Amino acid sequence: MPQYNPPLRDLKFVMHELLNVVDELKLLPAHAEVDADTINAVLEEGGKFASEVIAPLNLSGDAEGCKLDKSSHEVATPKGFKEAYKQYVEGGWPALSCDPEYGGQGLPVLVNQCMYEMMNSANQAWTMYPGLSHGAYEALHAHGTPEQKATYLPKLTSGEWTGTMCLTEPHCGTDLGLLRTKAEPQADGTYKITGAKIFISAGEHDMAENIVHLVLARLPDAPEGSKGISLFVVPKFLVNADGSLGARNPIFCAGLEHKMGIHANSTCQMVLEGAVGTLVGQPNKGLAAMFVMMNAARLGVGNQSLGLTEVAYQNAVAYAKDRIQMRALSGPKAPDKPADPIIVHPDVRKMLLTARAYAEGGRALATYVALQLDKALASDDEDERKAADAEVALLTPIIKAFITDNGWIATSHCMQVFGGHGFIHEWGMEQFVRDSRINMIYEGTNTIQSLDLLGRKILANNGATLKKFGKKIAEFVEEEGVNESMQEFVNPLADIGDKVTKLTTEIGMKAFQNPDEVGAAAVDYLRVVGHLTFAYFWARMAKIALEKKDSGDPFYTAKLATARFYFAKLLPETAGLIRSCRAGLSPLMEMDEALF
Amino acid sequence: MPQYNPPLRDLKFVMHELLNVVDELKLLPAHAEVDADTINAVLEEGGKFASEVIAPLNLSGDAEGCKLDKSSHEVATPKGFKEAYKQYVEGGWPALSCDPEYGGQGLPVLVNQCMYEMMNSANQAWTMYPGLSHGAYEALHAHGTPEQKATYLPKLTSGEWTGTMCLTEPHCGTDLGLLRTKAEPQADGTYKITGAKIFISAGEHDMAENIVHLVLARLPDAPEGSKGISLFVVPKFLVNADGSLGARNPIFCAGLEHKMGIHANSTCQMVLEGAVGTLVGQPNKGLAAMFVMMNAARLGVGNQSLGLTEVAYQNAVAYAKDRIQMRALSGPKAPDKPADPIIVHPDVRKMLLTARAYAEGGRALATYVALQLDKALASDDEDERKAADAEVALLTPIIKAFITDNGWIATSHCMQVFGGHGFIHEWGMEQFVRDSRINMIYEGTNTIQSLDLLGRKILANNGATLKKFGKKIAEFVEEEGVNESMQEFVNPLADIGDKVTKLTTEIGMKAFQNPDEVGAAAVDYLRVVGHLTFAYFWARMAKIALEKKDSGDPFYTAKLATARFYFAKLLPETAGLIRSCRAGLSPLMEMDEALF
Repeated sequence: MPQYNPPLRDLKFVMHELLNVVDELKLLPAHAEVDADTINAVLEEGGKFASEVIAPLNLSGDAEGCKLDKSSHEVATPKGFKEAYKQYVEGGWPALSCDPEYGGQGLPVLVNQCMYEMMNSANQAWTMYPGLSHGAYEALHAHGTPEQKATYLPKLTSGEWTGTMCLTEPHCGTDLGLLRTKAEPQADGTYKITGAKIFISAGEHDMAENIVHLVLARLPDAPEGSKGISLFVVPKFLVNADGSLGARNPIFCAGLEHKMGIHANSTCQMVLEGAVGTLVGQPNKGLAAMFVMMNAARLGVGNQSLGLTEVAYQNAVAYAKDRIQMRALSGPKAPDKPADPIIVHPDVRKMLLTARAYAEGGRALATYVALQLDKALASDDEDERKAADAEVALLTPIIKAFITDNGWIATSHCMQVFGGHGFIHEWGMEQFVRDSRINMIYEGTNTIQSLDLLGRKILANNGATLKKFGKKIAEFVEEEGVNESMQEFVNPLADIGDKVTKLTTEIGMKAFQNPDEVGAAAVDYLRVVGHLTFAYFWARMAKIALEKKDSGDPFYTAKLATARFYFAKLLPETAGLIRSCRAGLSPLMEMDEALF
Repeated sequence: MPQYNPPLRDLKFVMHELLNVVDELKLLPAHAEVDADTINAVLEEGGKFASEVIAPLNLSGDAEGCKLDKSSHEVATPKGFKEAYKQYVEGGWPALSCDPEYGGQGLPVLVNQCMYEMMNSANQAWTMYPGLSHGAYEALHAHGTPEQKATYLPKLTSGEWTGTMCLTEPHCGTDLGLLRTKAEPQADGTYKITGAKIFISAGEHDMAENIVHLVLARLPDAPEGSKGISLFVVPKFLVNADGSLGARNPIFCAGLEHKMGIHANSTCQMVLEGAVGTLVGQPNKGLAAMFVMMNAARLGVGNQSLGLTEVAYQNAVAYAKDRIQMRALSGPKAPDKPADPIIVHPDVRKMLLTARAYAEGGRALATYVALQLDKALASDDEDERKAADAEVALLTPIIKAFITDNGWIATSHCMQVFGGHGFIHEWGMEQFVRDSRINMIYEGTNTIQSLDLLGRKILANNGATLKKFGKKIAEFVEEEGVNESMQEFVNPLADIGDKVTKLTTEIGMKAFQNPDEVGAAAVDYLRVVGHLTFAYFWARMAKIALEKKDSGDPFYTAKLATARFYFAKLLPETAGLIRSCRAGLSPLMEMDEALF
């Protein structure tokens, strides 16, 4: 069975050495008192919960899956899941970064980000139950009425209730404008909602006493398309005025999907048969309200693959040190053994280092974005809030798509290190691959992310946000330009920065002629910009490692070696991507649809 | 449920237009009478068997899996598998390219190659049962005694019995020199074999009356390592002198593996408790004998992913034409519908065309190699046999590794086209991804293939075989150099050819200093050379398509568009691979093992 050790040293490095989060948080009134000891203590305790409570349930949960009782519509989660959730609630974990007004601990988002990375490493399927609650919490927090907030937020904060997002229908996922679920206004101000939803993660389960569904539906006479969608909160059990649970609301699980991965999460077909809900936000503005939840969810999905990359790496390293097979081409390295441990073989190291560089690079980027999110939420300076918000918006599709694509590559490499054993369930490696695959799809496919990045976040404002972020990179390059030992990092960083600038302009020009050029370029483009962000953070991490390399702490030796690996072996991928991207639209459109 | 249509038009194109196989076969005495009608008739009937008999069992077989009865050691295959196998045997399919001396039809290997591509598309797990028989057939045909041939070959040819390869043990897969299974000589000239084997595909099942295991084991006092391994044939039921079945031989299935994919194939842990076997070939020369089987198996594995790429492509195209979602960025393409079919979106086309270009390129390469194999086996000119054999040896690791890596990319893309539905079992797309994953591992991991290519097939003879193959490419480039319409294909082909030459020399030089440089370069290098072979066949196919583009047959229009796509969007990957490859060994070895 796979093991998991919370990467506390690297989490602390990113927080305290790379990003100096405590100093940054001091500038935010709500978090001015947060000190390093508090953050570290939370991470240490959180790491124990992840590695000791939920990691041991990952493999068994995958084998067992969820079971629907069709007569009662109740779903049983795998053995141990309920109990672990009870412990999670008792530990106060759901409240970590929630609003103190509703019982939350008010810690920065970035602490929650790190906690979630560890939980995702330990058990992605389990972590989705509380993870989706947090999205519902955020949508209600931002758009709920005072009554809705009073009714739902304390229970979501405590974790006594969980939440869902009910968006997708059988005929529409990406294109929510097509959705058909209907909401009929009632005399008492509530709505009766009728329709069918699919792919509802954690839509039904036995871990909490109530489930708070956020449901997209159409009001009567709503405009067609995406401008006629409203958001409703629809609890599994209606809630009485005193907060106690009332009648069962007719929102039922009609079926569970049989999936490639995340078997232990219940992916439900939900049927609403006149379920009672209340409107969240403005009529017909449901998509905007839902996007609060969706943006958080997109960051959360990138974080899922970050977690899987880390845990896959750890287990592949352990195997590569233990498994002996063949001799190094350069001669025996363990002459006392019948063969060398496979970690002596360059390609095994390449697979391991790929996963390591993607995990550590992803952690740096994701934590950075979480810090910007804290600024966007809690700064008392409006300009800073806006700037931080724009940067989060820019980097969200990169976190979602680049980190999940990397996770697919990395988990597959780590599985490959195990040879035939990697394909066998009991080793746990193939589960990481299967679980990671959904992350490239849900909360907006990675193609949709790339269109969001290139079309909406970059070209729509003439690259202004990208330029701002690019300026940070340029300043770093300028500063380190005189530092001889940093040349091996800042030169390729400057180079890829220049190439992104040029590429962006080129695509922008072509898109004037034909907007489909954006769709042709977007996926390659996102991956190039993803590498730009990783190169930036790897160069910054290399700088710290160089400064401390004589400290005697091997952590910095490893960091420097991983940075060098990243620049030598992973960043070069951009050379091919840029060429492919520049080849443009016509090779994709030449063939008539009928000829496919 | 996925559908499968045998790609007969493209198979015939490759055979008769690209490779002119009938003319080539006329030069081989054994195949001089084979005409196009015969080949086409076999493919048409074979395609019906694949699409009508075994394709409908693929999804259900995956869901059901195999079941071991631990008391009887018998394995039940999924519903319908036995009956399909009976039909396969009654149709005479196992005998297709077998030796007429043992009841075979004596058709060229390349016909069998195409038949297997179709069966792999339809049902990889099912196809492995007869597929492994063919490997056992070849090992016995090449190395068996007259008695062994008389006993086993007719039954393997008819398909009444199936075969296996029993190589791997729990502590050794790649490094067979470590194996421990023992063979004790008996007074009657047989051996009693004792040991434990794992990952034995089709090791036990209910589809045939006997199973012929080819087992690697050590004789007493055998030298250590790979020079002390012998090959034995060990039947499930001993065979009496009259050919009837005798006693059950103590070679038992002790467990079935729970795997990521190919659920319907029984992957067995086999225990030999003094099982009776006879020696195949010379004592201690078992690995050499086994390599006959292994080389065939490696080509077979590439063919598995070729089949999966084709079927995944077909289903993704059907979905992309049917599913409506969003409008084209350049404006509605199906204004009469509430949204456009997703095939209008450039990135959906990119994913589809990637799969198509890999399927058609792989088919051209694999069929070409099968033709060379026919020459190596059946030419009456020794020089031609040797040259063909060397070329097959060179291209085998490329077929195994490049096509299976491409299959992983392509099946994953095709699944992505389905969005969330791709992750759901009933659509069948995620099964193609899971099934394809094993092809990168078994019969020598893709890392081992790359070492075989670069170390043994190229550097060991100073690139002589590669140069010979390169000469064919150079001749084609030279010939088409004056053809203006071919410039877009031959220029990049010439360019990648030059780059491969330069890269090979560079690595060769570095490897003199440190042999580990080979291990550092090999995986990137194989992928670059893989692209060189694909670029060569795509350029040749483009030439034919250009010549026939005014024929009015849209087949050539599509072929030309796919060729252009390949050169514009896939070949550029080599730019990054070459950069990564040239970065060499040191970024992989800098970090001390303890720091991973």
